Amino acid sequence: MVRRILMHMGPSVGNYRVMLAGVAENVGFATDEFVLAMKESLHGVLEVMGGDDSYLPFIIPGSGTAAMESVTTFLRRGDRVLVVSNGLFGDRWMRIFERYPVEVDSLKATPGLTVTPEEIASKSGGAKYRMTVMTHVETSTGVRAPVAELIEAARQISELTVVDGVASVGGENVEAVRWGADVVLTASQKAIGAPPGLGLLAVRRNLLAGVKGEGVSGYFLDLHNWQPVMEGMLEGRGGYFATPPISTVLSLREAFRMSGEEGLENRIERHRAVASRIADSVEGMGLGIVASPGLRSNTVTGVMLNGLDMNAFLSGCIGRGVEFASGVHPVLKGKYIRIGHMGWVNQNDAAAAIAAIRGTIEGMN
Amino acid sequence: MVRRILMHMGPSVGNYRVMLAGVAENVGFATDEFVLAMKESLHGVLEVMGGDDSYLPFIIPGSGTAAMESVTTFLRRGDRVLVVSNGLFGDRWMRIFERYPVEVDSLKATPGLTVTPEEIASKSGGAKYRMTVMTHVETSTGVRAPVAELIEAARQISELTVVDGVASVGGENVEAVRWGADVVLTASQKAIGAPPGLGLLAVRRNLLAGVKGEGVSGYFLDLHNWQPVMEGMLEGRGGYFATPPISTVLSLREAFRMSGEEGLENRIERHRAVASRIADSVEGMGLGIVASPGLRSNTVTGVMLNGLDMNAFLSGCIGRGVEFASGVHPVLKGKYIRIGHMGWVNQNDAAAAIAAIRGTIEGMN
Amino acid sequence: MVRRILMHMGPSVGNYRVMLAGVAENVGFATDEFVLAMKESLHGVLEVMGGDDSYLPFIIPGSGTAAMESVTTFLRRGDRVLVVSNGLFGDRWMRIFERYPVEVDSLKATPGLTVTPEEIASKSGGAKYRMTVMTHVETSTGVRAPVAELIEAARQISELTVVDGVASVGGENVEAVRWGADVVLTASQKAIGAPPGLGLLAVRRNLLAGVKGEGVSGYFLDLHNWQPVMEGMLEGRGGYFATPPISTVLSLREAFRMSGEEGLENRIERHRAVASRIADSVEGMGLGIVASPGLRSNTVTGVMLNGLDMNAFLSGCIGRGVEFASGVHPVLKGKYIRIGHMGWVNQNDAAAAIAAIRGTIEGMN
Amino acid sequence: MVRRILMHMGPSVGNYRVMLAGVAENVGFATDEFVLAMKESLHGVLEVMGGDDSYLPFIIPGSGTAAMESVTTFLRRGDRVLVVSNGLFGDRWMRIFERYPVEVDSLKATPGLTVTPEEIASKSGGAKYRMTVMTHVETSTGVRAPVAELIEAARQISELTVVDGVASVGGENVEAVRWGADVVLTASQKAIGAPPGLGLLAVRRNLLAGVKGEGVSGYFLDLHNWQPVMEGMLEGRGGYFATPPISTVLSLREAFRMSGEEGLENRIERHRAVASRIADSVEGMGLGIVASPGLRSNTVTGVMLNGLDMNAFLSGCIGRGVEFASGVHPVLKGKYIRIGHMGWVNQNDAAAAIAAIRGTIEGMN
Repeated sequence: MVRRILMHMGPSVGNYRVMLAGVAENVGFATDEFVLAMKESLHGVLEVMGGDDSYLPFIIPGSGTAAMESVTTFLRRGDRVLVVSNGLFGDRWMRIFERYPVEVDSLKATPGLTVTPEEIASKSGGAKYRMTVMTHVETSTGVRAPVAELIEAARQISELTVVDGVASVGGENVEAVRWGADVVLTASQKAIGAPPGLGLLAVRRNLLAGVKGEGVSGYFLDLHNWQPVMEGMLEGRGGYFATPPISTVLSLREAFRMSGEEGLENRIERHRAVASRIADSVEGMGLGIVASPGLRSNTVTGVMLNGLDMNAFLSGCIGRGVEFASGVHPVLKGKYIRIGHMGWVNQNDAAAAIAAIRGTIEGMN
Repeated sequence: MVRRILMHMGPSVGNYRVMLAGVAENVGFATDEFVLAMKESLHGVLEVMGGDDSYLPFIIPGSGTAAMESVTTFLRRGDRVLVVSNGLFGDRWMRIFERYPVEVDSLKATPGLTVTPEEIASKSGGAKYRMTVMTHVETSTGVRAPVAELIEAARQISELTVVDGVASVGGENVEAVRWGADVVLTASQKAIGAPPGLGLLAVRRNLLAGVKGEGVSGYFLDLHNWQPVMEGMLEGRGGYFATPPISTVLSLREAFRMSGEEGLENRIERHRAVASRIADSVEGMGLGIVASPGLRSNTVTGVMLNGLDMNAFLSGCIGRGVEFASGVHPVLKGKYIRIGHMGWVNQNDAAAAIAAIRGTIEGMN
Repeated sequence: MVRRILMHMGPSVGNYRVMLAGVAENVGFATDEFVLAMKESLHGVLEVMGGDDSYLPFIIPGSGTAAMESVTTFLRRGDRVLVVSNGLFGDRWMRIFERYPVEVDSLKATPGLTVTPEEIASKSGGAKYRMTVMTHVETSTGVRAPVAELIEAARQISELTVVDGVASVGGENVEAVRWGADVVLTASQKAIGAPPGLGLLAVRRNLLAGVKGEGVSGYFLDLHNWQPVMEGMLEGRGGYFATPPISTVLSLREAFRMSGEEGLENRIERHRAVASRIADSVEGMGLGIVASPGLRSNTVTGVMLNGLDMNAFLSGCIGRGVEFASGVHPVLKGKYIRIGHMGWVNQNDAAAAIAAIRGTIEGMN
Repeated sequence: MVRRILMHMGPSVGNYRVMLAGVAENVGFATDEFVLAMKESLHGVLEVMGGDDSYLPFIIPGSGTAAMESVTTFLRRGDRVLVVSNGLFGDRWMRIFERYPVEVDSLKATPGLTVTPEEIASKSGGAKYRMTVMTHVETSTGVRAPVAELIEAARQISELTVVDGVASVGGENVEAVRWGADVVLTASQKAIGAPPGLGLLAVRRNLLAGVKGEGVSGYFLDLHNWQPVMEGMLEGRGGYFATPPISTVLSLREAFRMSGEEGLENRIERHRAVASRIADSVEGMGLGIVASPGLRSNTVTGVMLNGLDMNAFLSGCIGRGVEFASGVHPVLKGKYIRIGHMGWVNQNDAAAAIAAIRGTIEGMN
C-alpha cells in the first residue's frame, strides 16, 4: 500500500506521464505516429549526448548491454581493444570482447577511484589500439571518471574511443563532439527516465562507412543493419530491420519532451543537487561515500555502511518505503549500498530517502 | 480521429488491458512484483509452446530476431546447420548464421507452399546436421508448415530441431513436447498480443548443459548468461544479467492471464475463425489467397490482389480505418497484401476489415 | 476477451486517449493545470452549443439530469413552465418541475414524431409561460426535433426557452445564438464522448443577473453558486464552490481538443454517416426505424424488431460483441431496441454492428 | 517537472492504481462489470462507515455537498433542524437548509474547539428537532469532534442524527451502528482516496420507508429515486435513475480493494501516524496547531504560522514540491495553512512535507 520510492540502478525513480505515453493500441512500426516518435527521439539522443549532425543516433531493442556489444560492429578480426574499467560494469566490457576474435587489454582502478589519463598514456609503448572503451559513471561504485581527459589520452594510442554513458547520459554533462568521442551509448531506463528495453547510441557517421561488412558483430547487433532504419526515421520515412519496442519508444519520446520542457542544464543540476544533499546527509549520519571527493557522480551514490549489516539496512529502508540497491563491487561487497537518483528524482525523494536512512540507522542501534 | 484497426504483422490488434498492466512506476527488476510477473510469464511461455518441465523457458530483451539469433548458443565452431525456409523470414535465418563460423545449408519453397518432409529426408545423403531450423508460420506469405512431419524427418538428419514460432505461438497449436522440438521461440508482440520488446524461448534443459562455454554466440544473446536468471525467477528469486524491459514483462503477464481466462484452445479457435471468415470473404470478392488450401495459417493471410494496385489498395483501406501490411515476398512483391489477425483480434475486427476491403475495391473500380 | 463495442445510450463508444487524459495524480482544484483545463473546456462547451460571449458556460458535477434540474435557478415561486416532450426523457422534465412550487404544463408527441411548432403556437391562448423546455434528440426514440422552429414558436408564448441537448450536443448542429435559446444543456458522456459525471450548460449571461436570489432551486444546483467559479476559470483564476470531478474535466478537455482536431463539422458528419449506414442496413434486413423519415437523429437509432424477441435479439448481439440498449418508450416497450452511435463511433463500429445484427437475425430464424 | 506532492483538502495524495482502474472503454451502466463494481463499492461504503445491513449505502454523482443536501430527502415542510458547526463546512449546512421550507437552528464553536455535548443538551428546553447534523472532522480547522458523545446528547432532542464524515471517513474510526447515527455521508476524494465526483451515504433503511414522497428535496438529490438502483446493484442487477460516473466508480472500487488489502485499522493508523509526525515536527519548528490537543484529526492539520506571511509560505512550499491549502476559517484567515494527509499519504510524503516546511521557514528568515 505504501508507494515505495525506487532509488535503484535502473529503472530508478519513474514517472507516470512517461509511462502513460506508451499506452497506445493501434500504433504499428510503419504508422506515422511511430515514425514521428522515432524522429523526435533520435534527435533527443543526439542532444543528451552532445552530438551533432556528424553523428548518427541509434535506438535499438535490448538493453545497455546490447548497446555495449553493438560496438563490435566497428571491430575487425584481430583488432586490439583497451578496456578502461573502474568497476564491475567496466569489467563487463571484457566479458563481451572475449566472445569475439579480438585482443583485449585492460586498465583497472581501485574502487572509489578511476583510471587516470597517465595510466592510459603509459600504454602507448606498444602497438596502437583499434578501440578504447571507458565508463563515464561506474554503476557499481558511483564514481564519475574525467572522461574528457581520458579521451584526450586515449586518442594518442587508439583509433576509436567509446564512452559508456549507461549511468550518466541525462544526468551528467555528456559532450560527444567536444570530447571527440566516436561512440557514446546508454540505455533508456537510467538517467533519461524512460522504461527499460532500449539501447541508445550516437555514432560518428564516417565510422559507419569505414567498416561496412568487415565487423565481427553478430546479425541483430550489427549497427549496419539498423543504419538505414535510423536514417529513414530521421527523414520521416518508416523502415524495418526487426520490430522495435513501440510503446517504449513512445515513452522515450515523452521523456525527451519533458527533458526539453525542463531544460537539459536544469535537469543535470537537479540530479546534482539531489546527489549533493544525500551525500551531505549520510556523511552527517556517520556513513561514508565510496567515491572519492571530486569523483562523485550526479546519478549514483555508493554509501559505506561502516559496519552496519547491509541486508538489515536495505530491509529497514524498504520497510520505511524506500528501495536502494545492494553494493556489488567484489572488493567492497556487503559493506556498502547504492542509491540511484536518476530520471525523475526530486528533492521530495531525497527528503524521503534521508528520513528512511535516518530511521533505519536509529532502528538498528 | 478514426480509431484505426491495426491488422499488421506485429504488433497487430492490441489491447488496453494488456498495455495498462505495464504502467507501474516503482517496480524494479529486484522487486517482488516483477519476480512474480516473470515467474507467471515463464510458465505462460511453456504453456503456449506446449513445453513441460524438461524445457527451460526464457524471456529476453530484444525481438523475435534476437530470439532467433540466440540459438547460436547451441552451435560450435564448424557445425552444420540446415535452414528450412518458406519465405523471407525463413531466409533471415541464413543471414544470421552467415555471421558465425558455421556451415549453412538450406531448402526453399515456392511462395504459397512449404518445404516437404520428403525434401528434408533427401538431405540425409551426406553428413548429419547439428541443427535444423524451420518456420511454423511464414510471415511473408501466411503459409503454415506441417511442423510435426517436418521435425520427424529432420530428426533423422539433425541432432537438434528449432521451431521458429514467431508468427504462430499463441494463435496456432504449438506442441514442443509432442513434436520433439529442442527449441521453440517467438516474440511478445505477435499472436500472444503483448507489446514488442521481448524474445521468448523454450529450450530443452539437457541442451543447455551440453554446450556450456562452447557456443559461438555473442555475450548478450548467449542463453547461458540468462539461464540462472530464468531458473531463479521460476523459484521466486530475483536475478540479473541485463536490465529486463519491466513494463513489457508486466504486460506480457497480463496477456498470459487473459489467455488463461479465455482458454488456450478457445484462443486458437478465435484466430482460426477470423482467418476463415476473412479468407472466405475475400475469395468471394474475387481476390486470391497466397497460401495453398491446407497450408493457411490462423494468424496471417496473404491476399492476391489480382491486378489491383497494391499501394492504392492499402491506402484505400487505411482511409476506411483498417491498416494492412504490404506484401514483401520478392517473387510476389506488389501483387499481394498481408492481413495480420493476431493477438486480440475478434469478429468485429473481421467485419470491419471485410467492409473496408469491399469498400476499397468498389472505390477502385 | 472479446472487446465488446458499446453502442449504448451513454457512455457510448469511448476512447482511451480521452480516458487516459484523466489519469493525473497530483492535480488539485486549485492547481494551474486544472484551471487551464476548465478554461479550455468552458470554451469547448460554448463552441459545441453554438454560444458566444453573451452566454456563460457551466461545467457542474452530476449528470444530465442534474443539468436539467439546475434550470430551476431561473424559476420563481408560482412561475408557469411548458414541457415539450417527445418521449420518456421529455417526460422527465415533468418529474423534475413537480418537485418545485411552479405550475407545469405539457405537450406530448406520438413515438416516432415530435411536437410541432403549430401545437406550441396553440398554447398561446392563455397566460404566458416563464419557461419552455424542449428536447433536441429524444433518447428513448432517436427522434430529432426541429428545434429552430419550435423555439421560434415558443418565443411567442414564453419568456425563456431551454434546449435539452443531452443526446445531441457534439453530434448534431446546435446553435444557441442563431436559435435564440436562453439555455442549452447536455452531459459529458454522450456525443461529446467524455466519461459521465458532468452536466454542461450555456446560459445567457443577462438571465443570470435577472433572478439572483429569487430562484426556487436548491443549493448544489443553484447556478448562481457556480457562477463565480466559472467566471474565474474563464479568466484563468481558480475558484471553489464544491469539489469538481478533476479527472473527468481533464478527460473532457481532451475530448474537446480531439473535437478541434477533427473539426466540429466533420465530427457531426461522422455521426450522420454512421447513422445513415446503420439505418439503411437494418431497413435492408427488413427491420424498421422508430423515427419518421426527416426526424432521424445522428446519434440514436431506434430499431423496430418487427416481431423478433427483444431480449433474445440483444443477447445475440452481445454474444457477437456489440451491446445495444433496450427500447424503453412505454408505448413501444419490448418491440424495439436502440443503437447509440455517439462520441468516438466510426465506420468500423458501424460495420461490426451491422454484421452483429445480421448474424443475430440469421441465428434467430 | 518536479512531481508535486498534493497535500490539499481533496483530492489529496492520489494513487495511480486507483486512477488506472477507471480507464475502461466499453463499460456501460448496464454492463456486468459495472454492476459488480457498484456492488463491491456499496459494501465498501458500509464498511468504512461502520454500517450494517440495517443501513442502505448510496453512491450518487456529484460531490460531498450533493451528499449533504440529499438529506433533505428526510425533511418535511416545517421541520426543525439543528446544525452543530465547528467551522466553515459546518456553516455550509446552514446555507443548504435555508433553501428549503424548514426551520434552522445552530450551535457554533470557537476555531480549534468543538461544540460540546453539554451545549447540545442545553437546546432541549424547547421543541424537539427533526434532525441534528454534525461534522466529524471540520475541514477548515482540522478539528475532530467527539461524535459519539455529541450523538448521544443529540438523540435526546432530535429524531434523526446525521454525521458529516466528508473529511473523516476512511481516515478515522466511523461507527454508524455503534454511534446510532441515522445517516453518515462522505465524498469519494478525501480519505477514501478515489477521484472526486461521488457522494457516498449510509442511511438507516427504516428511515427511507418513513418519509417516502413527503420530503422537501428536489428530484436529482431525492434518495428515494436512487434507492431502487442501490438495492438492485446490491443484488447484482443493474438499474438506472441518472447516468453514474462509471470510471469514477471503477476507481472507487479499486480504492476499497486496496483498503481491504491494507486493512481498515492499518489504514486509519497510517493516517494517524502521519498526522502525529507532522504535528510534532511543525511544533518543533515553533509553529502552532489550530486544533486543541485531544481534538486533532488524522486527516487535516491546521498549522498556525505565528506571523509568517501565508501566501509566501504556501508559495515557498510549492516551490519545494509540496502543495498545501490556505487557511479559510474567517476568524483565522491569513494566519494559518492546512495540510491534508488523506488517501494514499505515507511517511515518505510526511518526510517531504516536513522538509519543505523547514526549508521554507529557513528561506523566509
